[in-house]
Amino acid sequence: MKATVAAGLIAAMAAVWLPAGGGAAAAENEAAQAARTWRQQHERAILEEYIELLRIPNVSRDRVNVRRNAEHILKMMERRGIAARLLEVPDASPTETVPAVYGEIATPGAAHTYVFYAHYDGQPVDPKEWATPPFEPTLRSGRLDKGGQVVAFPPADGRFDPEWRIYARAASDDKAQVFALITAVDALRAAGLKHRANIKFIFEGAEEIESENLDKILRANQALLKGDLLLICDGPENSTGRQTIMFGARGIQKLDITVYGPNRELHSGHYGNWAPNPALMLASLLASMKDANGRVLVKNFYDGVVPLSEIELKAIADMPQNDAELKREFGLAATDGDGKRLAELINQPSLNIRGFAAGKTGEQAANVIPSTATAALDLRLVKGVTHEGQVARVVEHIKAQGYVVTSSEPDEATRLAHPRIAKVVAEAGGYNAVRTPMDLPIARKVVATVAGVRSPIVAQPTSGGSVPLDMIEDILKVPTISIPLVNYDNNQHAKNENIRLQNLWNAFEVQAALLVMD
Amino acid sequence: MKATVAAGLIAAMAAVWLPAGGGAAAAENEAAQAARTWRQQHERAILEEYIELLRIPNVSRDRVNVRRNAEHILKMMERRGIAARLLEVPDASPTETVPAVYGEIATPGAAHTYVFYAHYDGQPVDPKEWATPPFEPTLRSGRLDKGGQVVAFPPADGRFDPEWRIYARAASDDKAQVFALITAVDALRAAGLKHRANIKFIFEGAEEIESENLDKILRANQALLKGDLLLICDGPENSTGRQTIMFGARGIQKLDITVYGPNRELHSGHYGNWAPNPALMLASLLASMKDANGRVLVKNFYDGVVPLSEIELKAIADMPQNDAELKREFGLAATDGDGKRLAELINQPSLNIRGFAAGKTGEQAANVIPSTATAALDLRLVKGVTHEGQVARVVEHIKAQGYVVTSSEPDEATRLAHPRIAKVVAEAGGYNAVRTPMDLPIARKVVATVAGVRSPIVAQPTSGGSVPLDMIEDILKVPTISIPLVNYDNNQHAKNENIRLQNLWNAFEVQAALLVMD
Repeated sequence: MKATVAAGLIAAMAAVWLPAGGGAAAAENEAAQAARTWRQQHERAILEEYIELLRIPNVSRDRVNVRRNAEHILKMMERRGIAARLLEVPDASPTETVPAVYGEIATPGAAHTYVFYAHYDGQPVDPKEWATPPFEPTLRSGRLDKGGQVVAFPPADGRFDPEWRIYARAASDDKAQVFALITAVDALRAAGLKHRANIKFIFEGAEEIESENLDKILRANQALLKGDLLLICDGPENSTGRQTIMFGARGIQKLDITVYGPNRELHSGHYGNWAPNPALMLASLLASMKDANGRVLVKNFYDGVVPLSEIELKAIADMPQNDAELKREFGLAATDGDGKRLAELINQPSLNIRGFAAGKTGEQAANVIPSTATAALDLRLVKGVTHEGQVARVVEHIKAQGYVVTSSEPDEATRLAHPRIAKVVAEAGGYNAVRTPMDLPIARKVVATVAGVRSPIVAQPTSGGSVPLDMIEDILKVPTISIPLVNYDNNQHAKNENIRLQNLWNAFEVQAALLVMD
Repeated sequence: MKATVAAGLIAAMAAVWLPAGGGAAAAENEAAQAARTWRQQHERAILEEYIELLRIPNVSRDRVNVRRNAEHILKMMERRGIAARLLEVPDASPTETVPAVYGEIATPGAAHTYVFYAHYDGQPVDPKEWATPPFEPTLRSGRLDKGGQVVAFPPADGRFDPEWRIYARAASDDKAQVFALITAVDALRAAGLKHRANIKFIFEGAEEIESENLDKILRANQALLKGDLLLICDGPENSTGRQTIMFGARGIQKLDITVYGPNRELHSGHYGNWAPNPALMLASLLASMKDANGRVLVKNFYDGVVPLSEIELKAIADMPQNDAELKREFGLAATDGDGKRLAELINQPSLNIRGFAAGKTGEQAANVIPSTATAALDLRLVKGVTHEGQVARVVEHIKAQGYVVTSSEPDEATRLAHPRIAKVVAEAGGYNAVRTPMDLPIARKVVATVAGVRSPIVAQPTSGGSVPLDMIEDILKVPTISIPLVNYDNNQHAKNENIRLQNLWNAFEVQAALLVMD
């Protein structure tokens, strides 16, 4: 593996921001090698233990079963001698909340403490939609939609093809990383390798329901969870299959806009040309917000954006150049952003129409002037713009189009007083972006460690998607770096979620290396 | 009644376009009076017969029951000695189609022939939504939503308050007019009054399903249905409660527009700012079609509109000035049309967004860039613009916004070749406007006759709504005039349809007068 460390993209990046001397230290690579060896010797036992974990239903709102997962994971850690316990939500009933699972490996005299975050709950399932039941983990010879067939477990010859997949809810998102961390500990113990820092694990049980109560758990355990770095072990790697590291995530604010026409649907023949149509009003309002290139026209929308550093610009330039392939894959003849690459554009704030609706369409369409029209937006945020600030800018823009803006349903008097009324509701739970500087010493160390195991890597200053890292950083006062490890085509959040075995194997190696960082 | 003929609005109009001498001839007023007298003597029997008719379910697609209505109406006519028969759809199975009911009263030596059109089918019903079952006609002491209570039939004292209502499907739309015509014949017979023209009735059974097959029935019976005038006996009177006459109706063309983004929904975080959003594209496209005053910006959209005649302009000026009340009723602070009145504006072509949809809104909204966005439009047409022509203008407008316009779902190659693709589908069944000149001798005669019975009247050059009069006029080569007679608040097409007894009583009188026109 060492031979490839300096190869490919990492070589270019290394020149700028890898520690002098480049590459990971020997201990990390030794750990990764130990994980591989140990895995090769125990594939069947490893998968048996993983399947046992995947069998426990973990839909976030199914608190009884989610708690069973927590207790199961607690026992898995205790069996390995990891000091573990449940962190309950303070002042809450255990039937209405779920705990986080905490684990600790103390390393006397260690200079640093690393906290590994993952989550053990999963998205809702509709078993009818699944090819095989979501909580009956099923081995397949490849991707279901590319003809992957069910493989008996264990296979007759005892050999597991790394392109095989396990289909089950949370197989990728995110039990894979909970399991990889625990398994990596086995490998280190078996090889007699030592941790060189204090290691802490926090496995959340409500990530898929907007990390409900995580803030309370973190606040109640600030001292316990203290560390130099929090590693977010979640999410898929780059679609090119390269090992990915992300140094932040965009923030998000969801926003609903409703505009008003007549107080009931009116006959479009009898009142057309006379009664204002809210669908047209909303169309004009939305059209005023962005130009044909997707540039947001809301005043000051880009003000305050923290510019990318030289290292971040370099990292973006070095990311895989696969825009043309993505365009083809998504059937797009053109993209927004004046020819800029996707990798660049996700470093800007965005304003997106998630959906809109007025009246009915298709066979249900009636000959009416609708009474209201509604749009659901999401504003993605980058460093330097806040969710409250972006909402205020959008509200100002709506007012500048002649609207009275309300936060609740207008009453009759309001409707009769104002030709243009927009109800704007910013959903609770908006949060800001986080971007950890890629040249922090700890960031360099993580890059060197991961690149030492798998390279070339994709080092991404931010994810286009959103994770509430700002809440974690605010409470724990710790920088965050994300280590996504599962296959990009894992059907995350959808039916037939799966993990490719090779991705699970890679995860053991990467985590083993991170677990022995000094 | 005579005393009021010259009163109010009709006075002003009469000066311009009523026949010299004004007012209706004595025979017509005598007939109306006979209808009143006869009705006053037979209210209970009349309503019993009407309730019997309303009991027969008549949802258009329920062909077995619709045919039962036809046969029932046939017998009602035969009992009165009206030469009646069913006009079947040519070359069609009687289990898959429904007949029109034809009736004729020949008047030897008559110079004119008048054809009375009404329909006996009704809109679909959802009995769960109704206060009382739609086919169990129920008498109430007033409007249900204003506290009207069920009244036993017959009432204890045998007296019927004219503000009472009968609740049942088709009570207003449009069995009321089928029934009024037949009942008016009874009154004329009882009073020994003679018809002075040949009278023909055609009662359609599929009006609520876009007059399916009516063209075939008309074509097969062109000679039979020949006449000097076709009176459309359907629809509600003006909301002021004044007797209304309409000389035409706008045409209509429905149009669906779909624009395309990525070939599947994309994560709005990972692809926002890069993947074009079809909801925004559609918003911009729709916004480009109309200005803030509701004026259509599609090139040539108003070209060719036949100007209103002096008489029509005068009629519109004389229509009730109730825009302020309507605004209040509909909760509108402002209206489209640069301050023009509703009565004027419906004489222009319109472009209306019936509905639009992309992605999801409300609690179902997901953080995605939608794949498509769709709008359902209706184009209302006036004399001088055709449905094909307006579609072509809208298509040209869409092209001028940079779109490739297709009529079917674009394939992958098309999507990859064109950044802007709009699928535009003009629904089958579009038809043009009809406007019968108000100064035709026959039109003047109808106005004088109706105004002789009830005045002031509202004489409206066109309905804002649409009726396929052009098809009738094309096939039968006959001018049409509409005589709407039911209460405007009859819940037509909706749950709890009803007719106010006074409107039914009025209908007998107006129809009796029309049935004796010379």
